[in-house]
Amino acid sequence: MYLAQIYVHHKASILDPQGEAVLNALQRLGYDKVDSVKQGKYFEVNIKADSEDEASKVVNDIAKDLLVNHNMESYEFELKEVAK
Amino acid sequence: MYLAQIYVHHKASILDPQGEAVLNALQRLGYDKVDSVKQGKYFEVNIKADSEDEASKVVNDIAKDLLVNHNMESYEFELKEVAK
Repeated sequence: MYLAQIYVHHKASILDPQGEAVLNALQRLGYDKVDSVKQGKYFEVNIKADSEDEASKVVNDIAKDLLVNHNMESYEFELKEVAK
Repeated sequence: MYLAQIYVHHKASILDPQGEAVLNALQRLGYDKVDSVKQGKYFEVNIKADSEDEASKVVNDIAKDLLVNHNMESYEFELKEVAK
């Protein structure tokens, strides 16, 4: 079993209104050290796979088919082997 | 300048209906190797700080004040020093 931690965020060229809203709220609260905020999605997916290659293929497939809007978003992931 | 990557997710005892919906959709698409899905939020925050300790304090403060619902959610973060 593998745990995939998948981070989905807007591409750099795409406006991120949620992140802007959080930045504005933090500035109103007085956090002047916060320079920029981007908000994305985070998925933890447990995958029944015998190898890291197999798990990695599943992650790329589910990102393509469901989790990620490839027009606007990009993603990264990390895999960890976990107990079944 | 530090880049904080902050992951916010439901506590283990709290139902995660978004994650369940994604899992159901993946199973309908035939991904029978996917065992469980949890969905959370992901923030990338640039912080003007001179040390990792200072940046770390800012992250914990903004998590407490805005980003995290401590009744239902928990968070982790990683810090990386980045060019100003």
